[in-house]
Amino acid sequence: MTLIDLMNTRFACKKYDPSKKVSDQDIAYLMESIRLAPTSFGLQAFKVLVIENDALKKQLRPVSWNQSIIEDASHLFVFCHYTGFTEETLQKYAELRAETQGKKLEDVMPYIQYIRNTISKYSDEQFNFWAAKQTYIALGNVLLAAAEKEIDATPVEGFDKVEYDKLLNLKEKGLASAVVAAVGYRTPDEYNQFNKKVRKAKEELFEFI
Amino acid sequence: MTLIDLMNTRFACKKYDPSKKVSDQDIAYLMESIRLAPTSFGLQAFKVLVIENDALKKQLRPVSWNQSIIEDASHLFVFCHYTGFTEETLQKYAELRAETQGKKLEDVMPYIQYIRNTISKYSDEQFNFWAAKQTYIALGNVLLAAAEKEIDATPVEGFDKVEYDKLLNLKEKGLASAVVAAVGYRTPDEYNQFNKKVRKAKEELFEFI
Repeated sequence: MTLIDLMNTRFACKKYDPSKKVSDQDIAYLMESIRLAPTSFGLQAFKVLVIENDALKKQLRPVSWNQSIIEDASHLFVFCHYTGFTEETLQKYAELRAETQGKKLEDVMPYIQYIRNTISKYSDEQFNFWAAKQTYIALGNVLLAAAEKEIDATPVEGFDKVEYDKLLNLKEKGLASAVVAAVGYRTPDEYNQFNKKVRKAKEELFEFI
Repeated sequence: MTLIDLMNTRFACKKYDPSKKVSDQDIAYLMESIRLAPTSFGLQAFKVLVIENDALKKQLRPVSWNQSIIEDASHLFVFCHYTGFTEETLQKYAELRAETQGKKLEDVMPYIQYIRNTISKYSDEQFNFWAAKQTYIALGNVLLAAAEKEIDATPVEGFDKVEYDKLLNLKEKGLASAVVAAVGYRTPDEYNQFNKKVRKAKEELFEFI
C-alpha cells in the first residue's frame, strides 16, 4: 500500500466501539510514529499524555463538546506543548544531542546558542504558537500510523483547552494542551466511513509560480 | 517498508544538488499527499505555492536566513494560510461538500452553520493561528511522501514571513506564509544524512495516565 492509498483510506472516525481496545504493541507503534516526527530545531517541545483510563475519559467528554468519541475511543493521545523554555531544558537537549551523535558537549554548543538566540526573541504568545504548531506534524504522523495498522483515529480540536489544562494538571508541569488524537475501532454503523473524502481540486489548492 | 522505516529514513536535507530536478510525476504525487491531509472541518484553509523558478528562489534566499537549500532545492512548497473567511468561501465549501457526497446543498447547511458558529468567534489572530496549524499536518504528509519516493526534503521555518508575503504578493490574495518544504536531491557530501536522529526517549516524551 502506498502512502497515498493510506491517506485515502483513513477518515475521522465518529463512533468507536468502547469494547475494542488497541493492543499495547500497536500503541507502542503509534507512540514511535509521534516520537519520530520532525520538529523545529529537533527540540520536541511537547509531551504526549496517553489516556486509557475510563473514568478520566468520562471526565474529559463534557469539556470536549460532549463528543462520544472521547469516552468510547480506546486511547486518547493528548498533545501538550511546553509553555516556555528554561536553560535546564536547553542543557538537557544539548546532552541528548551530543550523546546521540557521539560528539563532545562543547561541539554541539554553537547549535544550542543558535537555538537560544532564536527562541529567546519569542514573546510568550509566539513561543506557544510555535510549540503548538509542531504537535500538528506529530498528529499527522499518528493518524497515518494508525491507518497503516488498520486502527481508526480522529484528530480532535473540539475541546476546551482551559478545562483540559486544569483536569490534566498541565499548568504545574509547564504544559498546555494543543490537540488530541483519539484511536480505537469503529462501530459497524459509524457514518463517516461511508462518506467520500471532501477535498479541493488541485487547481484550487495549488499555484505554480 | 513500514511507515516507521520511512520516518527513520528521512532527515532534513541541508544541501541540494541544484542540477537534479524532481520529475513532474513525483511533484504531482507530493501535491496529492498535501491535498489529502486532514484539516479542521475539512476546510483546507490554505493554498500551496509550488516554486520551481530559479530567479524567484534566488530572491527568496536572502529572506530565508540565506540558506542555500532555498536556491538549490528542485522545488519549494510554500504553505500559505488564508487570513480570514468570507461567506463566499463557506458557500464554495458547501457546494464542494454537497457535490462530493452526492447530497443536496440544503442537507450540508447544518454542518456549514456549525462551522460558521465556531469560526466566527475567532479573533483575527486566533483565526490565523488556527489556519496556520493545519498546514503543519500537510507539511508532515509531504515530508513522508518525499521519503517514500526517495526524494530529499527539508521543513523550513527559518524565513522572514513579512518578506515572503511581499515577494509572493500574498496579502492581496488574502494569504499569509506559514511554513515551507524544500524538495530535491542531496549532494553526496550533504552532512545531515550522516547524523543520527536526535529524539527524546519515550519515557521522556510520553506519560501514561
